[in-house]
Amino acid sequence: MVSTAGPKASNPLREFDLIDRIHRKYGRGAASIVRGIGDDAAVVFPHADRWTLLTTDLLAEDVHFDLRTATFADIGFRAMTANLSDIAAMGGHPLYLLVALAIPRRGTVRQVHQLYRGIMASGRPYGVRLIGGDVSASSGGWFISLTLIGCVAPDRALFRRGARPGDGLYATGTLGDSLAGMTLLQRQAKSSRGQRTARVASAHQRFLIRRHLRPVARLELGQWLSREGLASSAIDLSDGLSGDVRHLCLASRVGVEINLAALPLSAACRAFAEKFHLEPRRLALQGGEDYELLFTTPAALKSRLERRARKRGFRITRIGTILPANAGMSIRTSAGRRPLPAMSYEHFR
Amino acid sequence: MVSTAGPKASNPLREFDLIDRIHRKYGRGAASIVRGIGDDAAVVFPHADRWTLLTTDLLAEDVHFDLRTATFADIGFRAMTANLSDIAAMGGHPLYLLVALAIPRRGTVRQVHQLYRGIMASGRPYGVRLIGGDVSASSGGWFISLTLIGCVAPDRALFRRGARPGDGLYATGTLGDSLAGMTLLQRQAKSSRGQRTARVASAHQRFLIRRHLRPVARLELGQWLSREGLASSAIDLSDGLSGDVRHLCLASRVGVEINLAALPLSAACRAFAEKFHLEPRRLALQGGEDYELLFTTPAALKSRLERRARKRGFRITRIGTILPANAGMSIRTSAGRRPLPAMSYEHFR
Repeated sequence: MVSTAGPKASNPLREFDLIDRIHRKYGRGAASIVRGIGDDAAVVFPHADRWTLLTTDLLAEDVHFDLRTATFADIGFRAMTANLSDIAAMGGHPLYLLVALAIPRRGTVRQVHQLYRGIMASGRPYGVRLIGGDVSASSGGWFISLTLIGCVAPDRALFRRGARPGDGLYATGTLGDSLAGMTLLQRQAKSSRGQRTARVASAHQRFLIRRHLRPVARLELGQWLSREGLASSAIDLSDGLSGDVRHLCLASRVGVEINLAALPLSAACRAFAEKFHLEPRRLALQGGEDYELLFTTPAALKSRLERRARKRGFRITRIGTILPANAGMSIRTSAGRRPLPAMSYEHFR
Repeated sequence: MVSTAGPKASNPLREFDLIDRIHRKYGRGAASIVRGIGDDAAVVFPHADRWTLLTTDLLAEDVHFDLRTATFADIGFRAMTANLSDIAAMGGHPLYLLVALAIPRRGTVRQVHQLYRGIMASGRPYGVRLIGGDVSASSGGWFISLTLIGCVAPDRALFRRGARPGDGLYATGTLGDSLAGMTLLQRQAKSSRGQRTARVASAHQRFLIRRHLRPVARLELGQWLSREGLASSAIDLSDGLSGDVRHLCLASRVGVEINLAALPLSAACRAFAEKFHLEPRRLALQGGEDYELLFTTPAALKSRLERRARKRGFRITRIGTILPANAGMSIRTSAGRRPLPAMSYEHFR
């Protein structure tokens, strides 16, 4: 009995004090918030003329992040981006955030604050408000679970289902950068323990590492696709193209042919692949956590989409074509067509 | 590289398959759900004439639960009740659930299903719909993070703030049962390894263990307080009375005097305390996870509250009086007044 109801004072991460301090620092009010952090539940006014979006993502130490290669601010930033990216893929606007955090014994208040600083640095530009959360001890490592609430205009949400045969398949930005950046970080961690490692030009290296540690969700692009009615379906690239295109095709009950040569690569990713004797388009196909968007557009809207994207300065690349379901999922390479590999990104292990 | 992007097929808890199976089993549609599990985010219609409630609770293995004394269905049930109880304390109605789950290597699909079965067994009677989630590997133990969305009539939400000097302080049900039940379970786990333990009559024992493993949130009671305008403030008893009354008083900027003799005890808790030579009201004061409600009612509404509660069959007990802030927080015992102990429930360790 005594052991189960001891005084809180012995715990440096006393739950109530910590939540209170975080509240004072990061919880800002807004006209739509009746009550933020500090009650049994947060209370907000609904957006009566909008659909509500809800998404949750869990990040676990040694699975989604490695404290040898990322700061707490980096980890918070990426966790928030993962959730923002889900809202982006729906064409929505993020609004409110809840954070559940399990803190190991070795954790410090400073680390918790850095984590929140990273979370808010990623979410603040989009007006995200921290309205609630929970903190707990952890007998293992760090666990971070974010729940993000957003909104979208009715009948304007982009779903995974909706792609039709003949639609073009598009990706935003460049793919594979995050995996390249993570690999560089892991090699750096090893080489600091005496192993030799190949070098990539430092500007490329910084770019790739930043793409891994500080990815930015494609919110403006997703909102634009939704507003202009230019996409028949969408998904965010968190698990890797080869896995995520599969989700989109299964939800839409269609097949796909991806053109391997078309996958958009950054100069930095090309340089990285060359240095390490890798096939860069394989990084693009299987690397996760790029937080780009994958979407489909009907053939009739192709030229409008591409013209308007150019005008807005959005980088989009047509990487394939949606086919009937019975055509299956395949990749066209210089050596011919082959089935889409049933592989996908598995984080650290 | 190879180690970070290996095939998913080697993992028995393949994320996509598992989510898919859970979706088919537990994700049921409703008129208000545009899209549940299976997209980047869930999409729901807002309740335009209601305020939205949002709460999140994280449960960690060896902190909030112990696999030697609880089944996965028990753990899921309690996790859901913890969230339902937050909605109850706001006077609200629960609607939608998101589940984030980190699964250790030793975890099985069967255990995951049992967990969800427990979660839904607790939530289903109130119409809670599972609309989203995330699963991940865990390099430590199990982590369960639930986010529950609810609604409440505008201006009818019960807050922690709102208590005024002169208000009566009330608790629902009986207190200390969960701590007694947990202690019995822990002693049983030990005695099965050869240690002797005192015995409590088996009906009492079953009652206390059930109160610990299968607590029920006071949703009807919270909704009734909100609807009838009978409470000036409320909080749920998750951390224990001595900690939670402190939160309520700090939020309301008031003091309190609790009458120790008035704390409501079950016959089972009394029998347990007698057997183990404990002071039962200390269990009631410091035991957590009873998921009862603590609320305040203005003196002018006292007789209406008590009369109507009797009529509805709700068990409520007046356990103290709200005082001005400068009176501090105290307990009246047979030996006189003494300060409220700055102690609170700390789960397992």
